Amino acid sequence: MDSYNTVENIYLLVIITALSVLQNIFFALKVEKECTCPNTHALAIERVSSANRNCMDAYPTFMAMMWCAGVCLSQAPAAFAGLLYLVVRHKYFIGYMGQTSQSTPGYLFGKRILLFLGLMCLVGVVNYLLTRFLGTDYKESVETFTSAASTLLLFP
Amino acid sequence: MDSYNTVENIYLLVIITALSVLQNIFFALKVEKECTCPNTHALAIERVSSANRNCMDAYPTFMAMMWCAGVCLSQAPAAFAGLLYLVVRHKYFIGYMGQTSQSTPGYLFGKRILLFLGLMCLVGVVNYLLTRFLGTDYKESVETFTSAASTLLLFP
Amino acid sequence: MDSYNTVENIYLLVIITALSVLQNIFFALKVEKECTCPNTHALAIERVSSANRNCMDAYPTFMAMMWCAGVCLSQAPAAFAGLLYLVVRHKYFIGYMGQTSQSTPGYLFGKRILLFLGLMCLVGVVNYLLTRFLGTDYKESVETFTSAASTLLLFP
Repeated sequence: MDSYNTVENIYLLVIITALSVLQNIFFALKVEKECTCPNTHALAIERVSSANRNCMDAYPTFMAMMWCAGVCLSQAPAAFAGLLYLVVRHKYFIGYMGQTSQSTPGYLFGKRILLFLGLMCLVGVVNYLLTRFLGTDYKESVETFTSAASTLLLFP
Repeated sequence: MDSYNTVENIYLLVIITALSVLQNIFFALKVEKECTCPNTHALAIERVSSANRNCMDAYPTFMAMMWCAGVCLSQAPAAFAGLLYLVVRHKYFIGYMGQTSQSTPGYLFGKRILLFLGLMCLVGVVNYLLTRFLGTDYKESVETFTSAASTLLLFP
Repeated sequence: MDSYNTVENIYLLVIITALSVLQNIFFALKVEKECTCPNTHALAIERVSSANRNCMDAYPTFMAMMWCAGVCLSQAPAAFAGLLYLVVRHKYFIGYMGQTSQSTPGYLFGKRILLFLGLMCLVGVVNYLLTRFLGTDYKESVETFTSAASTLLLFP
């Protein structure tokens, strides 16, 4: 029963994590295919490796943020932001590969989503501290507000 | 008592995590030794760096999968798969360094183990959803089946 | 109420995680600035990329260790060690960029802090096993001892 309750609070995060792992494997297969294909341009190989490396560099940061935000505050907005991050990452990867000119998208991507998740963490911790020291509990209202705010991420 | 129960459900995963960290440090020391040794071939340095980088790139993916699978379903098969992954990774690292010909093992490794862990996550979440919406609980039988299935990973 | 208890046990870890993410983003912005600035030396770009990459390579290892140590044993010393790690990492990054001679600081950094966190994990798991099989519980005394020992990390 204890394990049942645990899963209840994190199952959306688990689904997003599984999706992100599938995406990682997709990226890795792309790199492998590009590197073993005999007639690929050296630039294309470098480009797909860079795209993959940038995505992998940012991956632990994203995971840590999403799980902290989901556990501290509320899982639904965190999972929704995670899903958006995966979409942004996919666009970034495709965009990085596709361009033939020198200008590539920058090193960072999804800054706004990471910021939103970071704010969720902060609000969760501050809310906990308020509950502990002042005895007030704004969690319900904060969760509602966060869910509403997460839809703002949809704007480009 | 609460913390005691928490540790009960994850201690095998913690042991595997600590082992994987030791392995990471071992890889890092190998890289450091190879790079500072004055009479190493440039190819050897590049090879050991690539091996380390590929292992590090896949590390967060593996960690996320193992912990999700362990928390959602059952820790013993997840930890067993994690142990196998560490063995596979060690073989990969050694194999990457040892070869002098151009052909290296691919970018990805341990695909089957990651797939197994992903399936465990999926089964855990589906089982939770079934429990919630249909009121049936197959967790006991699923856990037994998973433990049995994890031994199948031993086959090469 | 259940979520309230969860946050109670991890809120310091969450704060450290959020700080580390801010630091990651700071590093990434440094890399981006260095790469897009037109009159930077190629060596400087390579140096800042290497510093960032080494930090990112070690990041999942650190995260896994800190969270395991914090959950298994006690969050305050783990968060304190995490804070020190962030300071050490900042020094490492600045030191890596600043040098113009060929000698760079090694690939690994913060070995002592990772070792301390690893020991905390080990002690937590051993303590759990002792509690389970022998019925003794040294957790209180171990936590006090760990808090005291963590101040030893302050010595250079």
